[in-house]
Amino acid sequence: MYRTHTCGELRISNINQEVTLSGWIQTIRNLGGMTFITLRDRYGLTQLVFDENTSDDLKSEVTKLGREYVIKVAGKVIERSSKNLKMPTGEIEIIVNELVVLNKSEIPPFTIEDETDGGEELRMKYRYLDLRRNPVRESLKLRHKIGQEIRKFLDSKDFMEIETPYLIKSSPEGARDFIVPSRMNPGEFYALPQSPQTFKQLLMVSGFDKYFQIVKCFRDEDLRADRQPEFTQIDCEMSFVDQEDILNTFEGLAKYLFSEIKGLNFEEKFPRITYDDAMKFYGSDKPDMRFDMKFKEITEIAQGKGFTVFDSVEYIGGICAKKCAEYSRKQLDALTDFVRKPQVGANGLVYVKYNADGTFKSSVDKFFSQDDLKIWAEAMNAVPGDLLLVLAGNRDKTQSALNDLRLEMGDRLGLRDKDKFAPCWVVDFPLLEWNEDDKRFYAMHHPFTSPKVEDVSLFDTDPGKMRANAYDFVINGVEIGGGSIRIFDAELQQKMFAALGILKEEAEEKFGFLLDAFKFGAPPHGGIAFGFDRWCSVFGGSESIRDYIAFPKNNSGRDVMINSPSKVETKQLDELMLKLKEQKE
Amino acid sequence: MYRTHTCGELRISNINQEVTLSGWIQTIRNLGGMTFITLRDRYGLTQLVFDENTSDDLKSEVTKLGREYVIKVAGKVIERSSKNLKMPTGEIEIIVNELVVLNKSEIPPFTIEDETDGGEELRMKYRYLDLRRNPVRESLKLRHKIGQEIRKFLDSKDFMEIETPYLIKSSPEGARDFIVPSRMNPGEFYALPQSPQTFKQLLMVSGFDKYFQIVKCFRDEDLRADRQPEFTQIDCEMSFVDQEDILNTFEGLAKYLFSEIKGLNFEEKFPRITYDDAMKFYGSDKPDMRFDMKFKEITEIAQGKGFTVFDSVEYIGGICAKKCAEYSRKQLDALTDFVRKPQVGANGLVYVKYNADGTFKSSVDKFFSQDDLKIWAEAMNAVPGDLLLVLAGNRDKTQSALNDLRLEMGDRLGLRDKDKFAPCWVVDFPLLEWNEDDKRFYAMHHPFTSPKVEDVSLFDTDPGKMRANAYDFVINGVEIGGGSIRIFDAELQQKMFAALGILKEEAEEKFGFLLDAFKFGAPPHGGIAFGFDRWCSVFGGSESIRDYIAFPKNNSGRDVMINSPSKVETKQLDELMLKLKEQKE
Repeated sequence: MYRTHTCGELRISNINQEVTLSGWIQTIRNLGGMTFITLRDRYGLTQLVFDENTSDDLKSEVTKLGREYVIKVAGKVIERSSKNLKMPTGEIEIIVNELVVLNKSEIPPFTIEDETDGGEELRMKYRYLDLRRNPVRESLKLRHKIGQEIRKFLDSKDFMEIETPYLIKSSPEGARDFIVPSRMNPGEFYALPQSPQTFKQLLMVSGFDKYFQIVKCFRDEDLRADRQPEFTQIDCEMSFVDQEDILNTFEGLAKYLFSEIKGLNFEEKFPRITYDDAMKFYGSDKPDMRFDMKFKEITEIAQGKGFTVFDSVEYIGGICAKKCAEYSRKQLDALTDFVRKPQVGANGLVYVKYNADGTFKSSVDKFFSQDDLKIWAEAMNAVPGDLLLVLAGNRDKTQSALNDLRLEMGDRLGLRDKDKFAPCWVVDFPLLEWNEDDKRFYAMHHPFTSPKVEDVSLFDTDPGKMRANAYDFVINGVEIGGGSIRIFDAELQQKMFAALGILKEEAEEKFGFLLDAFKFGAPPHGGIAFGFDRWCSVFGGSESIRDYIAFPKNNSGRDVMINSPSKVETKQLDELMLKLKEQKE
Repeated sequence: MYRTHTCGELRISNINQEVTLSGWIQTIRNLGGMTFITLRDRYGLTQLVFDENTSDDLKSEVTKLGREYVIKVAGKVIERSSKNLKMPTGEIEIIVNELVVLNKSEIPPFTIEDETDGGEELRMKYRYLDLRRNPVRESLKLRHKIGQEIRKFLDSKDFMEIETPYLIKSSPEGARDFIVPSRMNPGEFYALPQSPQTFKQLLMVSGFDKYFQIVKCFRDEDLRADRQPEFTQIDCEMSFVDQEDILNTFEGLAKYLFSEIKGLNFEEKFPRITYDDAMKFYGSDKPDMRFDMKFKEITEIAQGKGFTVFDSVEYIGGICAKKCAEYSRKQLDALTDFVRKPQVGANGLVYVKYNADGTFKSSVDKFFSQDDLKIWAEAMNAVPGDLLLVLAGNRDKTQSALNDLRLEMGDRLGLRDKDKFAPCWVVDFPLLEWNEDDKRFYAMHHPFTSPKVEDVSLFDTDPGKMRANAYDFVINGVEIGGGSIRIFDAELQQKMFAALGILKEEAEEKFGFLLDAFKFGAPPHGGIAFGFDRWCSVFGGSESIRDYIAFPKNNSGRDVMINSPSKVETKQLDELMLKLKEQKE
């Protein structure tokens, strides 16, 4: 037997018990005649003692131990003379009378501590050692707990978890598929699912009524920061529902998780904001609602004063930074530099200080009188002591830059507290998105999203104006989930394909089974999918989803620990009837 | 709003309520002036009535309805005059005053009934309709329930569910991998996991102590009956355990499931049988223990009597079929035909009837006296009225054929009741298996399985004789799970690779990360993996795992519903730097 207790278990009430523990050596300290070892396992730390009564043989064994050795010890629980009340086991220690080295350890390439000296690359190569660190383990414990609670909640609401296949068929829309050659069907390929979208819709046609699945999805994209080629989705679908039913059901899930995981109880309904308002007030379809600082457009009141930079633009808008009128030249320069960064993309920043004495000091005093600036200030609900930050240019780009600036100011003013949570629903997304390069519409969500009933007639007149029964769930500026009410009528679906420029034959070839299914009595249905990795990271307070994935891949899609992807044997390719093409430089 | 209630919900206590239901039309019956419609959803059936008081408009609407139409109705709950007590809603019906056709349906290609007229191929092509049938839906409900209960149990025992990656690395042992070309790393490939074996071992090295995952696994095998290229595994691993800990923990899981799912309480420990005994008594490492009928070897007592067929063979053994002495010539011929089938492979069958009067009648009376046969009967614990069935030949093949015969007799005698459950553990598997074609050893379980401590010295002398700390969990002759205590010592692991003829470089290339990990303090660990599909089928009483998979593939690995695998666009292959090879005829 390897242990009677875990390393996190023993308390003052266990004193005088003979126990056996197993674990890893966290630290070894020699203090004169005494040696203290901290033994670690998943459950905690326990202090081991070897003192003057320890046999010489045992003492000599102890000198051979090192960090991260795996040992088994037997001994008696005693009360500590100097207690460590920060440790759950800190009132006791084990006076060891038996020691077995279960396994030795080389010196780890970085310290197994909360704050480690290992860099990202090194920790990823030795991820199995990185996973020994408390913060990483806690992140995965959080993930386990969230997964369990999601299943518990959805099961209690009559959702059935149904596994959909991983070896499916390549589909034309959306991101690039990973494909899997079939040996039994030479020249043919499976694709890994980007999501179980069509299958969950088929399950609704089958009458399953409420479906969910926590499931891996795959996208072969050029990886931007914090994207993974494989990621986990909480995929849900319901029948005989409209948008309101979906939002209420999954707001219920979110509130349940907030309560169970974070101990936070949201009494009020989550705010809902239309896509148009989100863009207008936050310049983003995933607004961070932890703080206000909404945009105010001042195009009309700011134009026509002879400031040519303003007079020629489509949009002038700004934010009001409360109590920042005292910002120094240096601080304002830093903000100007910030908005000029290529990833933000503004040409410059106009500031207006609303001084405590009621006067204004701005970077555009030459063009605007105190009265002019007062009108701006009033429009932006500013009071003396506030700072106005204004950008101008093309509407979309300026709103996007203003969003970056707003978030930057939120950070500077400490308004983006990771322990504060501001969930919201963004609704009424456009159905279609025009792509100027391809000169065609793309589905904003996906080609099965239904338009609002009152907008259907726009298919023939102004498709770009159509709104969809589509919604996103956002927490703290992070898109946690999104979904839509689906088209359940085969004719409307054909119209949608037509608007997307998907030919009838192509639709038939790629989605024929879904279109066929719709002929046999498809119920009204809709759903949502949440990014599980992302939800974990928001709850865990980290910026990166990688912290919540046991074995993540890097930005080139590589697992540097197992060194994958890798070459395969020619025999494998032969069996698949495949050849590698010569690489060109 | 689409419904106030589901179709399985209304009872006598709801009488006089105004309700709205939505669902599919199961049946329409016209009886004079009345029309009865049975409306179906996942939750049940409810009878709708249109009678003499129904408006003419509504009556005319009703004539246009057909099977599988999706409708929404509003009306009042009334008490039925002729109650159907077999239906939970059979005491009430709805007198409809409003009807909306949500979707029409073409006539389904087969009937949506418990017993359908559709053949396997047709039902698989229209799987979304097949899934509407009660038995199929019930199978998936069972699967959902089993999944939930497994997670509940393991969570309560401190197991953490941790997701391991799907895009991993091709590995040399075991079945053939599915591979996935990497676009970002041209010429390189991921592999889909045959199991998360190495990752769960790494998680133990990381100190996670107790891990589980319900996870898809992939094997590119030539599909035998009831194999799927993708299947679901309940994958578990624990640290600081020996075989006894694993068996006890997962016997706990099995008993919990038997209790929660089947209402069966197993008080006793599950029987354990060694691999050697399983082969000796049942000719199989997955014995069906629902009935006894053990093999008895009679090689010694049956040889030397001048029956040359017997005298030259390695093994003679038989089973005793209780109370079958009255079997007719025809029945015995049928058994002879059975054992001669190529998949059984015996040359012939010897029978001995132990007549009620104490005499014997056998197919080998010419060679064996009544006394000779009495000795056989005594050896096989037969009594008057029993029938002995004896096969002879090469030991392995004969035991295998005798296993088939035993199961056949079990079927004929009704001893294989699908509502009876006989779980057992098979233990002490051989570590290695000699492959005569390749002239090398293969790992019986996998290359990380530890030998029994007392057998380690045989590595150098008689590797074939080594027993492993490996075990299978078997219910009713079906292997539900299997696992082992792992090698956690890098040196022993190298010895194992050597015995398997895996070169050091190859091991380094393929498993280097695992061998490296073992250098940093690997704990003793072991685990088990259960076939989720198979466990569902045993609990559900079906022979086929396909019934428990929402969207299974056929024997050529095709999903005939979505028609996958399929050709992909040349552009996709170009991006992956791949070319199809010309197919040869």
